[in-house]
Amino acid sequence: MNELAVCLVSGGLDSCVTAAMAAGKYELALLHINYGQLTERRELNAFRDLVDYFQIPASRILVGNIDHLRQIGGSSLTDPELKIQSGGADTAQVPRTYVPFRNANILAMAVSWAEVIGACRIFIGAMEEDSSGYPDCREDFFRAFNRVIATGTRPETEITVETPIIHFSKAEVIRWGMENGAPLHLTWSCYTSNGPGACGWCDSCALRLRGFREAGYIDPIEYLSQ
Amino acid sequence: MNELAVCLVSGGLDSCVTAAMAAGKYELALLHINYGQLTERRELNAFRDLVDYFQIPASRILVGNIDHLRQIGGSSLTDPELKIQSGGADTAQVPRTYVPFRNANILAMAVSWAEVIGACRIFIGAMEEDSSGYPDCREDFFRAFNRVIATGTRPETEITVETPIIHFSKAEVIRWGMENGAPLHLTWSCYTSNGPGACGWCDSCALRLRGFREAGYIDPIEYLSQ
Repeated sequence: MNELAVCLVSGGLDSCVTAAMAAGKYELALLHINYGQLTERRELNAFRDLVDYFQIPASRILVGNIDHLRQIGGSSLTDPELKIQSGGADTAQVPRTYVPFRNANILAMAVSWAEVIGACRIFIGAMEEDSSGYPDCREDFFRAFNRVIATGTRPETEITVETPIIHFSKAEVIRWGMENGAPLHLTWSCYTSNGPGACGWCDSCALRLRGFREAGYIDPIEYLSQ
Repeated sequence: MNELAVCLVSGGLDSCVTAAMAAGKYELALLHINYGQLTERRELNAFRDLVDYFQIPASRILVGNIDHLRQIGGSSLTDPELKIQSGGADTAQVPRTYVPFRNANILAMAVSWAEVIGACRIFIGAMEEDSSGYPDCREDFFRAFNRVIATGTRPETEITVETPIIHFSKAEVIRWGMENGAPLHLTWSCYTSNGPGACGWCDSCALRLRGFREAGYIDPIEYLSQ
């Protein structure tokens, strides 16, 4: 039997492709986090569809709630008072959708779970280039986090974070997914809509649609407008 | 006005003394975490007493819930099925009260909050010597975590974790607290009882009582047995 890996699955494209990559080498345990994002209902549906697709047993599914990120606020993804920006994907500034230190919160949870279930890897579909400038999506951050894991877990624990698509562009993620049969039709990326259609204009939809165009594929999900 | 610091306050001795130290230099924001510990009810009372004592305004109080640590289990502090050990404080093994990677979860939350409210420091009352061998209480861990903060937050964010009692013994913490008027009578350390009296025999009570004996002071809280 293969070794066990925890894979963070938001329900979006990047985590779907990352899970498909990890599934070739590891038994998967899937972790989905509800941190108060406004589109959590639709994301959780996508997560459940991916759980079914990858045939994950119940003992290897964890839906974690981090309600403090909503309490803390500071991001348009969790605070209805802060408007989602559009067209900001190319600016150098950290955008308002940045949830402060979100990935550290999520990875900490993943490590706690991995240590208890005996997983040796944590897969996260972070990407440096297409991450809208979020500081906690950079390779430096993950390298530093691996050092935190090494110093902060039991001596016999060997867990490392893997970021297989960190240097991919969105188009490369999509191309890999389409060419390897990853279930991209089950994914959800939109920051503003809970479905059935994605909005088509938020940063996340814009990046996704541009990625499909560049990759030369048609996005299999529905849009309200494009 | 002084700069703002987030101080992690469990309600125990160590965080009380750490808060008293930080209060001399910073305006305080107090963060208490409910991670499913069995004595949370009593700890939260102690936290509220300390909030009153330090006169913290409502906007600078956060009680965070991390229910995934209870879901994940793996520790006798959060799982009623795992018995609390006694007398294990001196053994080299990581004890069963170790909550996997707890401090990383807690610090990640503190950093998210600090970034939103503009705090520049995070105080945590971790101690290497008296930490019962928890890996995430060592200076190496906190040093690595500071690197994660530097890489994973906005470029303009300057937050560092401070561990002023990291090399103190329990007796030194108590001595500092008694000599500087820290409100040790409001604190709660027991791992097994929700009060009114502390059990007197769990690891945490044993360390506390021994610390008071070594420091030459009488513990002001009540015990069921000693």
